[in-house]
Amino acid sequence: MAYTLADIAAQLGGQVLGDGNVHIEQVATLEKAQAQHISFLTNRKYQSQLASTQAGALILGAADADASDKPRIISDNPYAYFARVSALLNPLPQPAMSIHPAAHVDPTAQIADTASIAATSVVEAGAVIGAHTVIGEGCYIGANVVIGENVRLYPRVVVYHDCVIGDRLIAHSGVVIGADGFGIAMDEGRWLKIPQIGRVVIANDVEIGANTTIDRGALDDTVIEEGVKLDNQIQIAHNVRIGAHTAIAGCVGIAGSATIGKYCRIGGSAGILGHLQIADHVEIAAFSLIGKSIKSAGSYAAIYPFSTSDEWRKNAVHLRHLDELVKRIKTLEQEVISLKGK
Amino acid sequence: MAYTLADIAAQLGGQVLGDGNVHIEQVATLEKAQAQHISFLTNRKYQSQLASTQAGALILGAADADASDKPRIISDNPYAYFARVSALLNPLPQPAMSIHPAAHVDPTAQIADTASIAATSVVEAGAVIGAHTVIGEGCYIGANVVIGENVRLYPRVVVYHDCVIGDRLIAHSGVVIGADGFGIAMDEGRWLKIPQIGRVVIANDVEIGANTTIDRGALDDTVIEEGVKLDNQIQIAHNVRIGAHTAIAGCVGIAGSATIGKYCRIGGSAGILGHLQIADHVEIAAFSLIGKSIKSAGSYAAIYPFSTSDEWRKNAVHLRHLDELVKRIKTLEQEVISLKGK
Amino acid sequence: MAYTLADIAAQLGGQVLGDGNVHIEQVATLEKAQAQHISFLTNRKYQSQLASTQAGALILGAADADASDKPRIISDNPYAYFARVSALLNPLPQPAMSIHPAAHVDPTAQIADTASIAATSVVEAGAVIGAHTVIGEGCYIGANVVIGENVRLYPRVVVYHDCVIGDRLIAHSGVVIGADGFGIAMDEGRWLKIPQIGRVVIANDVEIGANTTIDRGALDDTVIEEGVKLDNQIQIAHNVRIGAHTAIAGCVGIAGSATIGKYCRIGGSAGILGHLQIADHVEIAAFSLIGKSIKSAGSYAAIYPFSTSDEWRKNAVHLRHLDELVKRIKTLEQEVISLKGK
Repeated sequence: MAYTLADIAAQLGGQVLGDGNVHIEQVATLEKAQAQHISFLTNRKYQSQLASTQAGALILGAADADASDKPRIISDNPYAYFARVSALLNPLPQPAMSIHPAAHVDPTAQIADTASIAATSVVEAGAVIGAHTVIGEGCYIGANVVIGENVRLYPRVVVYHDCVIGDRLIAHSGVVIGADGFGIAMDEGRWLKIPQIGRVVIANDVEIGANTTIDRGALDDTVIEEGVKLDNQIQIAHNVRIGAHTAIAGCVGIAGSATIGKYCRIGGSAGILGHLQIADHVEIAAFSLIGKSIKSAGSYAAIYPFSTSDEWRKNAVHLRHLDELVKRIKTLEQEVISLKGK
Repeated sequence: MAYTLADIAAQLGGQVLGDGNVHIEQVATLEKAQAQHISFLTNRKYQSQLASTQAGALILGAADADASDKPRIISDNPYAYFARVSALLNPLPQPAMSIHPAAHVDPTAQIADTASIAATSVVEAGAVIGAHTVIGEGCYIGANVVIGENVRLYPRVVVYHDCVIGDRLIAHSGVVIGADGFGIAMDEGRWLKIPQIGRVVIANDVEIGANTTIDRGALDDTVIEEGVKLDNQIQIAHNVRIGAHTAIAGCVGIAGSATIGKYCRIGGSAGILGHLQIADHVEIAAFSLIGKSIKSAGSYAAIYPFSTSDEWRKNAVHLRHLDELVKRIKTLEQEVISLKGK
Repeated sequence: MAYTLADIAAQLGGQVLGDGNVHIEQVATLEKAQAQHISFLTNRKYQSQLASTQAGALILGAADADASDKPRIISDNPYAYFARVSALLNPLPQPAMSIHPAAHVDPTAQIADTASIAATSVVEAGAVIGAHTVIGEGCYIGANVVIGENVRLYPRVVVYHDCVIGDRLIAHSGVVIGADGFGIAMDEGRWLKIPQIGRVVIANDVEIGANTTIDRGALDDTVIEEGVKLDNQIQIAHNVRIGAHTAIAGCVGIAGSATIGKYCRIGGSAGILGHLQIADHVEIAAFSLIGKSIKSAGSYAAIYPFSTSDEWRKNAVHLRHLDELVKRIKTLEQEVISLKGK
């Protein structure tokens, strides 16, 4: 598949500078691009590569419009423009619109004519699968699950019974949606299981990375709002609500009944304790545990700074005596006041 | 399915106050409950909702027996009582007791007549599956695995060869039991693999959350004792032993040969280093790494407190100089003593 | 299977002391070993067990050659020798060299005659599977994937399209290779997906633990070099490069475009931020987040030391005021200087 630069701009907007007839087959980094590639500059760090790149064309912001004389498209948001060009040049392969003979689909399930149900996948009774949705190999769709249109479940995704999924979800392999939340009650020395009778409800335009798990609610539902983007190996506990357009990096754990606002960004391996409320537009640094609700937008962190192990050993030992240290400083302050008074 | 309040008390005990003939179909939170629901109060935080709830009946502790005049059951442990009511009202659906024609079961495997082996699952030679056990879609049961009675493996659980599983295990999708432990030996610049010839042995009444992994032992076995409850995405390394009735929250990692006591509670994303011994009745806070054995019951923590990123930046930098800071305080103390002596 | 001690030494080298005719069936720990077992001493901690062990034979280092008079093999590297003996005594079972009738293999895939493709696995168009490679039950091999020789994919491994895997890879259940990296661009309040068009390229002699995920590159490839050993539940983001013979423990997260050197060792649940460079021969402690590039070999740590929760509470609160504390110390130092000057 190839487009001229003019074709691209006709479809996606932006201003063409230089030869609009150059043929573009693929996107590439400034460093690796060749004549058939279009590249882009969105990070000052790579500015010096503009001079040496072999790219056939470029995507640049208005401020950089004259930073190269190669054929180029000028855009207000070159990174988003690049995303669109890449999507244009790399359409997802469309599997056959059909139910594979080696799929196991309950006769009471409602499968759209244009849906694709792959070999070795299982769709249980009462499930509903929308138009143009692709259920990959080895997926399991539980009873009465409702899945919208243009959803793509990669191989080996599991959706437990009764969960509801909107349009255009992308879920990668190993995702588990709707497993039981961790609900137990201690009774005379033994844990009793609390049945988890809520669902997982996922709105439109969500993406979920490989091996991420989202538990069903205990009584009410676990809710993932519109446009949420989840990386790999995230754990979302029962009755959590993730606000629209929030993006969460890999390995994050969110404990039960936490509510995360809209447009938050949570760094890798961070954690949020149960029952907390996190406001909209909150950024949480990687590896940070949030132990209290956050009421204001802003950036929050809790990272132990690394050093060589020798230095770490020397310094960290004092953390267990910090309170005593503060008391020694108070004592010193009083003694100095007393000495000054003399 | 519906029960009268009197029916419930007849089955589960507790004292009925008010109209025992009210019909109950489901459990619900105080906030969401309607006339056909029974709700409960176990957290003071929700006390104010008692007045406004639309619930048809309530489960209350003895101290709250008069806090509502709705039909109610009084119990010593209302949360456990609620768990039992919910289990009564929400029995698990029972799949057909049979081997699905699209399951792959080795002829030498011994499958109880009342067991259920789903489509696309695989049971290898010599495996034993107990009465009323359900093996979900896409599960893999390795050679010579022994699984007890009333076990439920949700879709896509893997149990490697030779592992032993007791009665009533619940394992959620994506669980991997018995993969090789991480055993390697360096030899002239290359890692040699150490064959992992131990097993995983799981006692009765264990639950394992989605995508949790439990590695087989290197030489001896990895052991999960009776009544242990594991949340999602936990990693249990080779030769670990988890004591009876211990509960572990999501994303915890337990390194090789650690021994965890009975009735411990481990918070989310915590970690325990290899070869440590943790006593019975130890609580470990979320996100805390335990780097030495713990010999006494009690509560332990190691959490960096979060703040805004600006404050964090200002404060955290000093952690790399804490030892020097302590020396400066010592110097000050000596100088103040010297000044006072003048 | 049994070997005499002399047979073992004939195959693997080392010097036999004592009766070379003793028959050895299995490896075992000093504590559990019986007459038919060979055991080993590689950790001083277990030295006292040498006297009481029932093992039929031992593997000892040169320094311990006379520490027992049992039949024994003396080796420069007893742990590596033990690994080799165990591999000799525990050969992996070899499944039938064939494509199972319940496997789904595209007719354009090239499967070596000696490969084994298990029931319920799927191999897509254009994929290439090398000699003696075993594709387990429920695995999914995407279009045009190339897999080398003597590879073993345990049940339920997913390899997305176009990825390249060398010889002798061992990948445990639940591994996902080549899912999309987490690439999104914000555009007018909505996240746009950036197509991930790179691959994952894995060199020879790599092992990957259960439920570990390795994302495909955004534009260029994600690369795992020769001899890398990855434990369970590790997350490797797009465009990461892991240097040869590096070993990474469970639950580690490595963010996008990080480059890890050769012969590094990374402890459990550690993290490495995106775009960093880590030198060769770097050791990173468990639970440590590395937030800047590391240019020199050595050992690095960032662990909050644990204590009882009460002590932790008392001490941790001061971390939010450390900067103020340092200022108070500076003030004290100036005042003491001033007092001394009087």
